[in-house]
Amino acid sequence: MSNTIKKLAVLGSTGSIGQQALDIIKDFPGKFRTIGLAGGKNTSLLAKQINQFQPELVYSPLKFSLPDKIKFSSMEEIAAHPEVDIVIIATSGKAGLVPTLAAIRSGKKIALANKEVLVMAGEIVMAEAKRHQAQILPIDSEHSAIWQCLSGEKTEVARLILTASGGPFYHHSSTQLAKVTIEEALRHPTWKMGRKVTIDSATLMNKGLEAIEAHWLFSIPFSQIDIVIHPQSIIHSLVEFVDGSLKAQLSTPDMRFPIQYALSYPKRLYNPRLPRINIARMNSLTFETINYSLFPCLQLALDAGKKGGTYPAVLCAADDIAVELFLDQYISFPGISEVVARTISLHQSINNPTLDDILAADEWARDTALKITKKESTCSKQ
Amino acid sequence: MSNTIKKLAVLGSTGSIGQQALDIIKDFPGKFRTIGLAGGKNTSLLAKQINQFQPELVYSPLKFSLPDKIKFSSMEEIAAHPEVDIVIIATSGKAGLVPTLAAIRSGKKIALANKEVLVMAGEIVMAEAKRHQAQILPIDSEHSAIWQCLSGEKTEVARLILTASGGPFYHHSSTQLAKVTIEEALRHPTWKMGRKVTIDSATLMNKGLEAIEAHWLFSIPFSQIDIVIHPQSIIHSLVEFVDGSLKAQLSTPDMRFPIQYALSYPKRLYNPRLPRINIARMNSLTFETINYSLFPCLQLALDAGKKGGTYPAVLCAADDIAVELFLDQYISFPGISEVVARTISLHQSINNPTLDDILAADEWARDTALKITKKESTCSKQ
Repeated sequence: MSNTIKKLAVLGSTGSIGQQALDIIKDFPGKFRTIGLAGGKNTSLLAKQINQFQPELVYSPLKFSLPDKIKFSSMEEIAAHPEVDIVIIATSGKAGLVPTLAAIRSGKKIALANKEVLVMAGEIVMAEAKRHQAQILPIDSEHSAIWQCLSGEKTEVARLILTASGGPFYHHSSTQLAKVTIEEALRHPTWKMGRKVTIDSATLMNKGLEAIEAHWLFSIPFSQIDIVIHPQSIIHSLVEFVDGSLKAQLSTPDMRFPIQYALSYPKRLYNPRLPRINIARMNSLTFETINYSLFPCLQLALDAGKKGGTYPAVLCAADDIAVELFLDQYISFPGISEVVARTISLHQSINNPTLDDILAADEWARDTALKITKKESTCSKQ
Repeated sequence: MSNTIKKLAVLGSTGSIGQQALDIIKDFPGKFRTIGLAGGKNTSLLAKQINQFQPELVYSPLKFSLPDKIKFSSMEEIAAHPEVDIVIIATSGKAGLVPTLAAIRSGKKIALANKEVLVMAGEIVMAEAKRHQAQILPIDSEHSAIWQCLSGEKTEVARLILTASGGPFYHHSSTQLAKVTIEEALRHPTWKMGRKVTIDSATLMNKGLEAIEAHWLFSIPFSQIDIVIHPQSIIHSLVEFVDGSLKAQLSTPDMRFPIQYALSYPKRLYNPRLPRINIARMNSLTFETINYSLFPCLQLALDAGKKGGTYPAVLCAADDIAVELFLDQYISFPGISEVVARTISLHQSINNPTLDDILAADEWARDTALKITKKESTCSKQ
């Protein structure tokens, strides 16, 4: 970067992470400038953001009239815009994959919140990032915590320990889980997030996706990734080093922390708007082992990650459909893992897949997940 | 260092930290070689250490017959020996001060466990270290934790948070504290340490000394140093950064962790002998605010640190005498802070003291602490 103002593109600006990224950008007008915005279906919010941040380029799936000098563009063009330093990938699902690759191939820094990008295509994305010397700055709170703990360390780690709040149902019985309502599932005990990731947190699928993401980001085998329940969501993850010493990163559960760290890296910025922890007055920090049998999505994700190929793409796509069906009251909460498991069991994975193979597997899994739920709707429907 | 074997001098090798440092050195015969040993009064242990580690130079306050090719020497000569890379200052009280300065002036790395060195003469020691580019590697668990958390960070910190177990009496009433026995005071709930530092932990004087040490080591004002009770001694300290994010270092309470880190820095070494934490099966981590009124030594230390001059040297010397008198059953447990407070109140501090001023203040404080306790022995004696 030639000057001190970092020039940003925010893809997924109307989503939960995108809005919080713009909050941070707004906090530091002298540090960040928004060159491009890509929104989703909420065009009235996107129009407001355009008005406030005055980007040069805008992507919207639905077109509307833009102020002078602001142009519609594709997400890939925004990601590759010569002036942009950092591309914030705050899209969800597979939407971020192609724009991320476009940004990488233009040598941008990638502030990555869209975990499916690495889950679906970790090998391709990391290889391209290496080739084009494009740094990936994680925005997920767990990966940001690990990245912060690794800062300055000169030796390989013994293990990464991802913390999980456990979501709203961690102490439910299987009978209780079968009766979970959408409203209950959307009421996360510690984090305010988008609907999809909130449901993924309740099933623990989210933690499985994060393990796969950590595997690629930090090039560490799954055998050295542990997951531990930490209901308070204060310790965002830990790193155990070879000597047995651990480092942890802590903050109030607020996504603006990892967003700001990724944008200000390698520095940190004073931001009085971010809520502080008072350690002495904090509640106890507690930890529990994972109950894999009650939350089968986690094991499904870990298995898909270990097997590799197109399995992780199928996992993501099947979960995407299953969560939608749950939110449409079409399947029960335990039905989510059933749909994902069934879809994966029907899949013929391809080793060392190309991007096209991955996108085809995604399509196949969406179709398959829908087909099997229609077939099974009498037993899985509430 | 020109080759991969680090050459060490261990000053205070027969004390608790010295013995644990030799345990670590023994664990890595290909990494460390012991050039010099300086022991205390336990000459039979020192003789064993000489036999095992075959140093070139030895210091002992009591002379005995040495094997061929091993010579008696002064601590300063050992510290300045041309072959030595790292000098471990594991002495206690003021004993480490002059050898530390000798090591610094020879441009050695200083692995510092003897906290009085920085408490008494922080300004002089840090200025000399800067002048001679001698790095100070902290061995206290709290300072090692902070140092580890600062690794790779590019911005100033908001605050350092020193954790304190609270010692064995943290929930005692003042009536209970008045009746504390030596055996109870020496029974630390989490750490195995020498007698002096164990009593200092029970009075919280130790935490005050650590705050002064942190002030000098990390050149941070006292207003940005917090102390919090953390009875489990798992989180060894935390750093809060300007963005409100915190990093913490964790391990089982075992001094070999910070010792090994200082010796292996900037790398870490795999050491299966160091006990691991299982995060998922760990007890809750709890935190409490400090009760300054019940543990007046802590405030005395913080005040002495803030006032500077020769006050911190007087604090250390008076505490040294007071702890000795308590261990001799000559004064009560609350008598320790009374002796320190009284001695400090009688002191005329010198600003910007020289080393001689500091050593003279130390002498004065020892005499004064003894005088006032003889005068007051009828009321403070149990």
